[in-house]
Amino acid sequence: MKLASLKHGRDGRLVVVSEDLNWFTDAFLIAPTLQAALDDWDRCEPRLRALAESLEHEAVPRGRFHEREASAPLPRAYQWADGSAYVNHVALVRQARGAEMPESFWTDPLMYQGGSDGFLGPRDPIPLADPAWGCDLEAEVVVVTGDVPQGVSPDEALGHIRLVGLVNDVSLRNLIPAELGKGFGFVQSKPASAFTPVFVTPDSLGDRWKDGKLHGALTVTLNGKPFGQADAGDDMTFDFGTLIAHLAKTRSLVAGSIIGSGTVSNRDADGGPGKPVSEGGLGYSCIAEVRTVETIQHGKAETPFLQHGDTVRIEMLDEKHHSIFGTIEQTVEPVG
Amino acid sequence: MKLASLKHGRDGRLVVVSEDLNWFTDAFLIAPTLQAALDDWDRCEPRLRALAESLEHEAVPRGRFHEREASAPLPRAYQWADGSAYVNHVALVRQARGAEMPESFWTDPLMYQGGSDGFLGPRDPIPLADPAWGCDLEAEVVVVTGDVPQGVSPDEALGHIRLVGLVNDVSLRNLIPAELGKGFGFVQSKPASAFTPVFVTPDSLGDRWKDGKLHGALTVTLNGKPFGQADAGDDMTFDFGTLIAHLAKTRSLVAGSIIGSGTVSNRDADGGPGKPVSEGGLGYSCIAEVRTVETIQHGKAETPFLQHGDTVRIEMLDEKHHSIFGTIEQTVEPVG
Repeated sequence: MKLASLKHGRDGRLVVVSEDLNWFTDAFLIAPTLQAALDDWDRCEPRLRALAESLEHEAVPRGRFHEREASAPLPRAYQWADGSAYVNHVALVRQARGAEMPESFWTDPLMYQGGSDGFLGPRDPIPLADPAWGCDLEAEVVVVTGDVPQGVSPDEALGHIRLVGLVNDVSLRNLIPAELGKGFGFVQSKPASAFTPVFVTPDSLGDRWKDGKLHGALTVTLNGKPFGQADAGDDMTFDFGTLIAHLAKTRSLVAGSIIGSGTVSNRDADGGPGKPVSEGGLGYSCIAEVRTVETIQHGKAETPFLQHGDTVRIEMLDEKHHSIFGTIEQTVEPVG
Repeated sequence: MKLASLKHGRDGRLVVVSEDLNWFTDAFLIAPTLQAALDDWDRCEPRLRALAESLEHEAVPRGRFHEREASAPLPRAYQWADGSAYVNHVALVRQARGAEMPESFWTDPLMYQGGSDGFLGPRDPIPLADPAWGCDLEAEVVVVTGDVPQGVSPDEALGHIRLVGLVNDVSLRNLIPAELGKGFGFVQSKPASAFTPVFVTPDSLGDRWKDGKLHGALTVTLNGKPFGQADAGDDMTFDFGTLIAHLAKTRSLVAGSIIGSGTVSNRDADGGPGKPVSEGGLGYSCIAEVRTVETIQHGKAETPFLQHGDTVRIEMLDEKHHSIFGTIEQTVEPVG
């Protein structure tokens, strides 16, 4: 089942979307918003599934689904916690600045509490007041949970995953060192993130959802050029069950919590850092990583961070080259 | 005007509370929940104020307001960002562990993004799975904002404050060093916070709300004994306008965002760390601070962190010794 929110008010209007992303039908008789459906999932889920089946059979009124009319599936959420499950990425970034990575990073997940009060739609511009802040994309996988009890095990946690999607976790790289240096994590250096137009139930992903991970190439395009195609199922040190259990160690989580994987990152076949797509590699899911590789290999970073007018595209394609979650496609724009 | 949420469903039921906290009247015809009122404040505020006036004149149906029936005013919120505006507190904690505090901490606010998906009501127990985690209270002031545009100035930000209240920002001290050591801020070491039963509009606070600060003694009681009475208006290096502007530097904030002051902390009259209430001082708003003072003065901490069965009480009294926001009164209990 695929769900989306059409732009409407503060929370959007819940719609069920056809598997091919071409059609939608309104779900307001079941739940007015995605958050409302998640709040009452046991009641809503079977009804939404029945509606989705009717949509596939053209047995209900339907309209053309235009991704540009979608907001983030949860335009505002009660929680956004982002992990760093691709430890390869963390190790590389540390290597570039000559910092040791603690061995515990391979066993104890790194995670930050992000701002969840306002998210961007898949076609919304990225508002950037000052290009000197070093704006970067980060292509990641996310899951949305139901209610999760405190102390849940990683295995149990997998049963609380309701939906899967993709995110562009926008980061302001040049603000990060000073902010993290203060010791309390990210505030100013993580502005609003953007999500794919559609979130999908795990069962609809077939073999792509396995062992608490989403498998498949995460296609990232920068200004029309292929930038990354790392496989989200590879090199993911911590699966989503482990990430959720980490977050829920000391408190319960409310339905509609969004948990991120961190920037997807694959090692090269030879075990070293990934090569650019243009050199036959799998490329990168953020600019910081290519800059890191450039720094390691050539002594300095060459690829600039995002400037006004730059466009970013993030999606995952199925075997028939159809988009699974729809496409995040954003242009960086000045504020106001 | 004083507003509260009675326990009901996931978001409570919005009520207007009398100035003396003795009575309430239902506000559901105006807005079903506090978040709904904040979402549409321009329409709701004058109606809620008219209802509050009618309540004072006993011109509407009313019921006895029992604080134990209240949830947190926002039982779940889209944002909880907590500052460390009482830099005195930060300096002390650093001194105790022999760490330098950067000079910039006096000019650049320290703030963390907290979990906002589930808050405790004022009488809810503090669920503590493991006393070895070092559970601490933190008595703080909070404000709730309306929609705040990106790049707002500190002065303008003050105009976006809708409500003022108090919080017990529960912290797990023994989990903090390792978690902050990982560099991404708090996740496991900050479980659910509890709020006063009532939030109050700034105008209702009279002289107590001045220069973007709440003035008056924050009364903290631990197991029935006076523990703290620091004045929230003193030694607050950054007012709420500055804290909100800090958070909104790179993104807009959604209505219902809760911003915290950080643990209230006063210097002693002689400029040194505060003395215990039992020695005629203003005491402390968290256990970590008294432990810090003990460490500085006697070489080791003596006051233990919270154990199962311990009770914490936080409130602010007016000139007539009436509670302004109602009382947070919580007992630490095992989980499950």
